[in-house]
Order: sequence, then structure tokens, then C-alpha cells
Amino acid sequence: MSLSTQVNAEGKESNETYTRHADDTVKLRNTNIADMDRDILYHIALDSGIQNLPQMFGDVRFVCLGGTPKRMEKFANYIMKEIDLKLPTGATLLNISQRSYRYAMYKVGPVLCLSHGMGMPSIGILLHELFKLMYHAKCKDPVFFRLGTCGGVGIEGGNLVISQKVVDGYMQPFLDMAVLGQLHRRPAILDQELSEELSDLRMKEDPFTITQGTTMCTYDFYEGQGRLDGAFCEFTEGDKLTFLNHLHDNHIVNMEMESLTFAALCHHAGIRGAVVCVTLLNRLHGDQVAESKEVLEKWQKYPQILISRYIKKHLNIKPN
Amino acid sequence: MSLSTQVNAEGKESNETYTRHADDTVKLRNTNIADMDRDILYHIALDSGIQNLPQMFGDVRFVCLGGTPKRMEKFANYIMKEIDLKLPTGATLLNISQRSYRYAMYKVGPVLCLSHGMGMPSIGILLHELFKLMYHAKCKDPVFFRLGTCGGVGIEGGNLVISQKVVDGYMQPFLDMAVLGQLHRRPAILDQELSEELSDLRMKEDPFTITQGTTMCTYDFYEGQGRLDGAFCEFTEGDKLTFLNHLHDNHIVNMEMESLTFAALCHHAGIRGAVVCVTLLNRLHGDQVAESKEVLEKWQKYPQILISRYIKKHLNIKPN
Repeated sequence: MSLSTQVNAEGKESNETYTRHADDTVKLRNTNIADMDRDILYHIALDSGIQNLPQMFGDVRFVCLGGTPKRMEKFANYIMKEIDLKLPTGATLLNISQRSYRYAMYKVGPVLCLSHGMGMPSIGILLHELFKLMYHAKCKDPVFFRLGTCGGVGIEGGNLVISQKVVDGYMQPFLDMAVLGQLHRRPAILDQELSEELSDLRMKEDPFTITQGTTMCTYDFYEGQGRLDGAFCEFTEGDKLTFLNHLHDNHIVNMEMESLTFAALCHHAGIRGAVVCVTLLNRLHGDQVAESKEVLEKWQKYPQILISRYIKKHLNIKPN
Repeated sequence: MSLSTQVNAEGKESNETYTRHADDTVKLRNTNIADMDRDILYHIALDSGIQNLPQMFGDVRFVCLGGTPKRMEKFANYIMKEIDLKLPTGATLLNISQRSYRYAMYKVGPVLCLSHGMGMPSIGILLHELFKLMYHAKCKDPVFFRLGTCGGVGIEGGNLVISQKVVDGYMQPFLDMAVLGQLHRRPAILDQELSEELSDLRMKEDPFTITQGTTMCTYDFYEGQGRLDGAFCEFTEGDKLTFLNHLHDNHIVNMEMESLTFAALCHHAGIRGAVVCVTLLNRLHGDQVAESKEVLEKWQKYPQILISRYIKKHLNIKPN
């Protein structure tokens, strides 16, 4: 805890000395890794002792994470068209982490697309291994995005939320972890410039609004988000609405299950990160995700559209 | 919190009045569900308003959960052979939850096989929806198993651990949750009779030992389990070994990432549950999962062998 507090107090410049080499490649806050002959990235099925990771991944600049393998495979194919990258005849995108059976990973030129599963522990394992991958591959100043789904608080389904702050289920802006049996607290801080830049990429004709605000990140989908429709429910509808209105009054605009770990680990690693989620419903009006598969599929493309614009801008590709 | 504490103090008989109807079918600790015309089990792609859940799932007696879709597909095919269930010519097992892209579900007669993903939130969402499925389908007294992988503490790779108790990263036998912004604590209690019965199913010629003991369940795989090989590490090898030896001295025999939620939610639902994990390494000797794919695949069958014996015994099928 001493280190993260210290860095936090000293500000960005000091954070960079811990997380960047002079040539802008990623430096790890763990000197053990440099001493290992071989680092097995078990959950993404890569191995620094067997594979030439700098050759395979050295050009990665954008890392895009989303919940399900299918959504991220679709995103990979979408971004391939958007950045006009063509595979040789007879080739197709490969799920690079297929052998792990845990996460799916697709690489489209400088864009890495991965599924992170559900919940903070699942995205946490992935981030540890991706930060190590960035280090082994000598990637320069990569930027990370979570493209997610969420429940809106006062926002109707089918709109985007860009997280400015993230809080836990007790409204604290920290990731609390047990390390060697002791409480370890990391601030969950997202890159404000990046959030602003993403927000500015909205176009007048977009079918969605964009709200910047605070995200509540929980460990549970049912009781943890005040739903009445879980297997257990020991509060009333009145209790629930009091809670949701309290969140609304405190500028909490959505709820999901991964952003706290994403923000805390990216910040600690000195990696720029942003969270862009589409709302699947307005929690002030209900609990069940009841839209048709077709509508949900359409909405889940909205974060992809925005992130694609960002990537194209930074690759100097003209917008459509 | 009042309800769970109350039930816990009153013991098993009282728990049953909350969790079982007179005919042994599952009763939910949530009266809202009975009032809903339609319950969408979003993450497993089932819908009580469209599907006839009692007809589809009413015969389920054994619910088997494991981390990855592939492992659980293999288990489904294995148990199909073991209980001598034959599909009609030209038929194959279907992933019932395929449309969710989140969990995989296979049904083999009275055995339901599902992947739960990684971490407590992921298995938690699934358990809420499975308990509701048991309720809608009118299943009678189902028994739940987690067939997992883990790190051994003083146990070499390729052996089984049956959890008697589960503790969190601070060695507390509770699941702490935020519900409507307040701390909510549920005791993580596993069925001791079931654990004993499973342990007795070991045969002399088995290539694995079985240890009954306490499991530590964490929210993180790297720092949370005292590993030196994460993207971050702010403790020494000496600190790590002091921690692991302290666990060992307190009869903690393995570490994994789902059992605390499994134990707490099953207990609260009045559903018998057991956790059987195979060790992939002995954490007293290292951090990396370095065995070959072939060895790991072989080991991951060990929990399946034991659970299959249990299921066959209770279906009155002779052992092989």
C-alpha cells in the first residue's frame, strides 16, 4: 500500500518513472518478471519462453476489452473493416487464446480485442496478464478500453455512458483487496483527458446520447445492484428505489461489474484507460433485461462505434 | 442480514421452511418471483414466459459447475457414457445457453453441466439464475457440485481437495457483500455429510489422493494469492512464504476463486453443495502453472471421476 499511496501523492510524473522506460515501452511494478527465463501467461495461453512476443504483439497500441467472446469477435471483424486492414486470401481471424478456453483474443493490426468474462476477478486476471504481455512485447504507451453493457440510473436503454469516476458498492472510489491477508487499497482513477476526447467524438446523427458521470461497480448483479428479481431478496421495492434515487442524487449514472478493477489496475500500471458502456435498461424503471435479442445486439455496437472513431483518429484514417 | 443470521441460529429445520415446499421442490427466499408473469434468466438465455421449464428441467437432480465451457462439455459427454444415456441417432448435446454467449449449459438426463467462468461474481450470477431455474422447473432437492482447479498449499499437483470449510482472503468464513450500500454478511457453510460421502468414494487404485480441509477463496489470482509473478508485486518471497506457511498451519490446503460464493449462496438457498478441486501445483514450491497441456487435461478429469461415482451411486448404477 505504501508504494501506491506514495505514487499517488507524488502525481503523474513519479508514476511514469515506475511504469515507463525511457523509450515509452511499458515497465512493470514487479522486478521479478525480468528475472524469469520464461513467463507463462496461463489464462491467455501465451508463453514468453516459446513465443516471440515482441514480434507478435510489439505493434499493439489499442487494447479493447468486452464481456463476451462473441461480441469481441464481432468487434474485431468490425474494426478490421473500419481501419481497412485486409487479411491475405484464405486467411481469417484466429482466437489467439483458444487453447486457454478462458478468454478470447483477436489481433487486428495495432488493435487487440479480448473478452474479459463477468466480474472484477475475471477482468483482473486478464489485466495482470495483458500488462505483462505489453511489457514482454515492448508495446509503446498502449491505451486500454472497456466496451461494456450496464444498467442506467436515470438513463434509458440504448445510450452510452463514459465513466469519469468509479465507486464500489459502498460508494468508495477504491479497489479494496486482500494481499497476504492484509487490506490493500488502490485508488480507482480513470484518464479524464481520454474520457473527454471520447465524449467529443459523438456525432449529431448518432442514435445514442453520451453521459459522462460516476459508475458504481458491484460484485453481484442481483442483490448487489438492488434488484428485486434474484433468487434472494430481503428488501422492499421502496428500499430499492430509495437506494437508486440516492445514487442518482450523487451523480451515479450507471452500474456494472468490472470498471473498478479496470480503473484501479490501469491507473497503478500507468496505462491510460477508459470505460464506455451502453445501457440495457433504466434501473429506475425495472430490473429485467427484457429487450429483444435484435435490439440488444444493435445497442452493443454503440460503444464499438465510438471506440472505432477514436482508433481511426489516432491512426490518421478519415472518418466515414 | 437479520434473516440469514436468524436462520443460522435456528439451524437446519428452520432453514428448510424457507427453502423447501412440502413436496421437496425448491422454494425461493424471494416472494417477488412468484408474482412475475415472466422471469427472464438473462445470462443463461432462458425465459419462464416462453419455455416450459418444468418439462425441460423438472427431472434435474445433479447440477455440476466448472470453470470453462470446454471442460464442462467434456464432462457432459463423459457422464453421458457413465450413466449409459444414449441420444437418438443423429442427435448431439446442445449448448442450451449458447444464445447468451456467457455460460455454457448441457443437460444429460438428470445431470445439468455448466461453465461458471472465473471468480465469485461470475459464479454468483449463475447461482442466482440456477436457483430460480430449479424453482421454476420444480426440481426436487437438487445437489450442486463445483468441479474446479486450484493451487495446493502443501499438496502436489494432480490431487483432489474436498472443501470442508471456506474462508476469504482475510481467513473469515463469510461472504461479505454490499446490498443497498450496506455490508451484508452470509456464512459460507458446506454440507459436511456430502463432503464425507464424496471422500469415501476414493478407490485404492486412484492416481490421486483426497484431502479434506479448508479452502481459501480470493478475488484475485496474482497478488490476492500471494504470487510473485503478477504485473504488480509489492512483497518479497520471504513475505509470501510466511503467508503460505501461516495458511498451512491453519489447515488451509488450497486456494481458488469461487468456493466462498458457492458455499454461502448454496447454504442460504438450503441447497446441498460440495466443492471438489484438483491441484495444478503446490504453491509452497512455486507460482506458475507450468505442467504440459496434456498433464493438465488428465488432472482436470479427476474431479469428474469422483462426481461421476456419486451420481451413479445415487442413480443405482453399478460402478465400473
